[in-house]
Amino acid sequence: MTNSATNLRLKLPIACIILEVIIIILFGTLVQYDDETDAKLWHKEIANGSSNYDNDFYYRYPSFQDVHVMIFIGFGFLMTFLQRYGFSSVGFNFLIAAFALQWATLMQGFVHGMHGGKIHVGIESMINADFCTGSVLISFGAVLGKTSPVQLLVMSVIEVTLFAVNEFIVLSVLGAKDAGGSMTIHTFGAYFGLMVARVLYRPNLDKSKHKNCSVYHSDLFAMIGTIYLWMFWPSFNSAVTAHGDDQHRTAMNTYYSLAACTLATYGLSAVVAHDGKLDMVHIQNAALAGGVAVGTAGEMMLTPFGSMIVGFLAGTVSVLGFKFLSPILEQKLKIQDTCGVHNLHGMPGVLGAIVGAVTAALATKDVYGDGLLPLLRNRQTPSKCGVRQAISLAVTLGIALLGGLITGFILKLPIYGAPPDTICFEDGIYWELPGEEGSQEELTAVRTPDETEKLNA
Amino acid sequence: MTNSATNLRLKLPIACIILEVIIIILFGTLVQYDDETDAKLWHKEIANGSSNYDNDFYYRYPSFQDVHVMIFIGFGFLMTFLQRYGFSSVGFNFLIAAFALQWATLMQGFVHGMHGGKIHVGIESMINADFCTGSVLISFGAVLGKTSPVQLLVMSVIEVTLFAVNEFIVLSVLGAKDAGGSMTIHTFGAYFGLMVARVLYRPNLDKSKHKNCSVYHSDLFAMIGTIYLWMFWPSFNSAVTAHGDDQHRTAMNTYYSLAACTLATYGLSAVVAHDGKLDMVHIQNAALAGGVAVGTAGEMMLTPFGSMIVGFLAGTVSVLGFKFLSPILEQKLKIQDTCGVHNLHGMPGVLGAIVGAVTAALATKDVYGDGLLPLLRNRQTPSKCGVRQAISLAVTLGIALLGGLITGFILKLPIYGAPPDTICFEDGIYWELPGEEGSQEELTAVRTPDETEKLNA
Amino acid sequence: MTNSATNLRLKLPIACIILEVIIIILFGTLVQYDDETDAKLWHKEIANGSSNYDNDFYYRYPSFQDVHVMIFIGFGFLMTFLQRYGFSSVGFNFLIAAFALQWATLMQGFVHGMHGGKIHVGIESMINADFCTGSVLISFGAVLGKTSPVQLLVMSVIEVTLFAVNEFIVLSVLGAKDAGGSMTIHTFGAYFGLMVARVLYRPNLDKSKHKNCSVYHSDLFAMIGTIYLWMFWPSFNSAVTAHGDDQHRTAMNTYYSLAACTLATYGLSAVVAHDGKLDMVHIQNAALAGGVAVGTAGEMMLTPFGSMIVGFLAGTVSVLGFKFLSPILEQKLKIQDTCGVHNLHGMPGVLGAIVGAVTAALATKDVYGDGLLPLLRNRQTPSKCGVRQAISLAVTLGIALLGGLITGFILKLPIYGAPPDTICFEDGIYWELPGEEGSQEELTAVRTPDETEKLNA
Repeated sequence: MTNSATNLRLKLPIACIILEVIIIILFGTLVQYDDETDAKLWHKEIANGSSNYDNDFYYRYPSFQDVHVMIFIGFGFLMTFLQRYGFSSVGFNFLIAAFALQWATLMQGFVHGMHGGKIHVGIESMINADFCTGSVLISFGAVLGKTSPVQLLVMSVIEVTLFAVNEFIVLSVLGAKDAGGSMTIHTFGAYFGLMVARVLYRPNLDKSKHKNCSVYHSDLFAMIGTIYLWMFWPSFNSAVTAHGDDQHRTAMNTYYSLAACTLATYGLSAVVAHDGKLDMVHIQNAALAGGVAVGTAGEMMLTPFGSMIVGFLAGTVSVLGFKFLSPILEQKLKIQDTCGVHNLHGMPGVLGAIVGAVTAALATKDVYGDGLLPLLRNRQTPSKCGVRQAISLAVTLGIALLGGLITGFILKLPIYGAPPDTICFEDGIYWELPGEEGSQEELTAVRTPDETEKLNA
Repeated sequence: MTNSATNLRLKLPIACIILEVIIIILFGTLVQYDDETDAKLWHKEIANGSSNYDNDFYYRYPSFQDVHVMIFIGFGFLMTFLQRYGFSSVGFNFLIAAFALQWATLMQGFVHGMHGGKIHVGIESMINADFCTGSVLISFGAVLGKTSPVQLLVMSVIEVTLFAVNEFIVLSVLGAKDAGGSMTIHTFGAYFGLMVARVLYRPNLDKSKHKNCSVYHSDLFAMIGTIYLWMFWPSFNSAVTAHGDDQHRTAMNTYYSLAACTLATYGLSAVVAHDGKLDMVHIQNAALAGGVAVGTAGEMMLTPFGSMIVGFLAGTVSVLGFKFLSPILEQKLKIQDTCGVHNLHGMPGVLGAIVGAVTAALATKDVYGDGLLPLLRNRQTPSKCGVRQAISLAVTLGIALLGGLITGFILKLPIYGAPPDTICFEDGIYWELPGEEGSQEELTAVRTPDETEKLNA
Repeated sequence: MTNSATNLRLKLPIACIILEVIIIILFGTLVQYDDETDAKLWHKEIANGSSNYDNDFYYRYPSFQDVHVMIFIGFGFLMTFLQRYGFSSVGFNFLIAAFALQWATLMQGFVHGMHGGKIHVGIESMINADFCTGSVLISFGAVLGKTSPVQLLVMSVIEVTLFAVNEFIVLSVLGAKDAGGSMTIHTFGAYFGLMVARVLYRPNLDKSKHKNCSVYHSDLFAMIGTIYLWMFWPSFNSAVTAHGDDQHRTAMNTYYSLAACTLATYGLSAVVAHDGKLDMVHIQNAALAGGVAVGTAGEMMLTPFGSMIVGFLAGTVSVLGFKFLSPILEQKLKIQDTCGVHNLHGMPGVLGAIVGAVTAALATKDVYGDGLLPLLRNRQTPSKCGVRQAISLAVTLGIALLGGLITGFILKLPIYGAPPDTICFEDGIYWELPGEEGSQEELTAVRTPDETEKLNA
């Protein structure tokens, strides 16, 4: 499994160290503590009558940590379902997330966080950086098993940058709402990744087919990822919404959407899977679609009832996508979507964007009371808000697809140490592997007469 | 492993979809945001001088998420100890928990949460729904490996309903305290489940005996569940106690009870287990009994000292139960309690109820100061409170046993696709399984001369 | 694998029960609720105008739970990398942590928490007890696989005591800052453990060499530990810092330090590991060094820029330590450091102490504003503070090394049931093991003609 083309000895250190040095220099010149993390500025606020308990840390940090778990454990372990790609799934997830959150702080800062020439950082920028990272990890899911860590780092550099641009257009220029990122995170990450996968299409990937599946224990590891994503999705969608009822309501809407989605997923899986049995692929993925689909409308007065309908639809669409659409995507459109991100993030993301547009268009003073104005930025009418939400979806799709196209061609250059078609989905190409399991059994037969004799002597 | 009787193609979708549709309709007609999640109502409070930071979201949500982790990761992985039942343990846990939390919102709302004909929902109803779900999952532990997902859903429908009724009687009618649910959650769930297991007794279960045990890795997965339950139990017991000292004290009492319980468990396990070695079954289960046993008294002035004594006793009782009582339950009473819930939730739950009654009866103004009155609802005397706590235990046991009996007979109907005696404790009957591990070894022997040749070419 | 010398039937119960009884008696005589957990005292504060929302529970408990996860899941699973030592890694971690947190409450209380002859306990004492426990678990990493649980309990008794003494000297006598414990936790725990390992040197340990390595799945379990430690380290370092900007800033500095450290780790690992591949040992450990290295300076105005530089250095030092220093430690200094704690906690801890001293010495009113005075306890000058930080490091190293030396000799007594050289790194010596994996395969071949026949009948 040794090959000079895929040897990382020079490629990966160069990529990691150059990128980190650039980041450190940019942080040194551009990044500053914000009012709530700077000792001097915060103590001025204290002198002006604020309390330490007013620091936003206490109202955002628990959500941040839940999001952090989703990014590193959730995404990381969800992708360990492949039988011999667990090290890479968790390990490359770890690497590109650690990179992307730093790069995102800079890119999001450049585009919409500059204060007097400086990027201000605090708990909200940390959450937003993690969100942007989530988008990259979604794209990672589409190309899982077929890319080198250097390719993934290059992809992250470009994707984070475009993410920040798109986020700026959607949230700041168009004034749309998308707190949980149905559009900016899920739709963007999915279609970007699918387009990259399309450009990197491998006609001979079936040579690695026997490794592109799970084994019993790898599916259990993947369930750790699934369950953490599922549990903490209410925190994800509510992490940067307005304080008070908005945050509270968003978490609750997401909770109900996911619960309804899970029942739809189990029901549909038994219908479409082989022989009336449940399929782990559906459970691991489709049960999460309910969180994606209320990422835009979750902060609105969607009601638990509305959330459940959306979640139920999302689960249904997602299972049907895995069963019927994924094979078509692969055979007709030549998109080899390893984790099925189109079913978990793509279609549910678009559904979420549409639900968001409709819900915004239907907002009334009667339902929202004084909560209506903050929802309608710039004093637009609800119907105009709905239109802007819809335009945002179109913009997101456009930037994602075009960006993915360009990125795909850049990643196609034969300089990053990508694996050959015969050794995809295989850790051994990039990781020193421990002794084979076979030899373990030998080891575990510990009660050799020799040893026992010594012991009882 | 294919059999029309256990085929889920029709049964499971019908159950899931009918139940979810009923839930959605009921939510649509009955459920409303409460004052803290409704945009209009909350902004009215803001207009009246409240701050967004006063929203209860910030004082309950972190506890909620810890409870959520216990329900989905804790219970789910604790039950993966069986060698070939990991998919079902985590997967059915996921399904019935996602169902039960919705159903519980309705049932608990009907019984004690109606406001002007509507059920109000917010963070507290979410925690209570998760609590009720915990009770169902305890019962699941008693019948683990011997029931179909359809049976489990039917059991959940009934158990959640009776849970809400019992909770109403104990907390509202009798005015008892039980914030951490020693009675309402643990005692109820355990004895309900044991009675169901009794009615579903399988005389020929030894035909599946060789699968009713763990392997090395499955025990490690189970430890994930154990440790999460152990760590977050302080959040569980304190999640719905009164704000301030109550919540703080409850978390701390639970922390100390669990620590003492763990030392008792290790000590006792080495005494009773084979050959002076530790038994994973004890560690995975009995070390948690300390959390159960302070579920009622934890919010009182039990003191760390008292908590440790209770925890120590609970661990001792639990290990001895696993060693000596479980075999008797199975052979004499014909209760096949797969996870030993009688030892983890049953006896420690009863112990917790008794400790709660005694602690309430001994409460004095001298110790509690102004904190006494909130403890003694309806201005009862402490001794009357103690009596009401004791009555609550009796009521809980009665409803649990009777409810379990009826439910058992309903679940015995041969229409739910229950597994035959020969294929219990086996995922393959309900799940599409990935390739056998044997074939994996073949795959991992990746360095075939052929491949190496190609690579080095 | 049975041997009277390592049989735990008497040894472990005696140790557990005697220790727990002593603890309970001491708690009964010495420990009291503090102002925020005592019903009477807190209700007095309420009567004086406090709000229940001011209870420190709400501003410390989420951090506490993150720390708790690091102690029990993080440390526990990090050490499961050994192929046949998973039960002991998680299980002994569980046991000694549950003991140490109780003992630490007492020892820390004796040394610096007495109020009128009583030890007051609340959320801050709980965090501090968990911190002290972390130190013991670091030492556990150095002797992993070569010690009996009784030895570990005895080590905990002594180490916790000395930890409290050292902490008192560093924080109270010298007035140094060390919120995240670069010195008091990491440096102390590492050098204490290394010295114990030195004294317990086993010249014939290579007889167990074949078990002192990982297998594929055990490395994945270990990654659970790594990722949890990595994610929650910002909570660890900020858990007991001052409220407001300090806590917020500490969390953010740690976040950036860890991210930069991770890129350094991946880059360096590919440079030094065999054949240009990544080495799991580096990823699992060195990526965490960034958290250790900002444990002292994290609460200061280190800036994200400074944090990243520190993190980058820490990751570099750590990987190089694993590659080049660990073999020397073993061969020349006869220190068999199973988990490489010198590379993860030792050197990065010392680095963190130095960074802390420098940062303190450079503090100015211009940068800190009114936040300077709280930093400089006792109105010292910044340069004097720097000197006191440096002295603290020296004191910590001295107490750790001397304490470890004495402890090592105490643990060398042949009465604790330590494993023989031939059966180190092996669960079977202390745990009842489930059936071998080999027999599992037999079981999973479930589709025997016999069974299928019965099913289809």
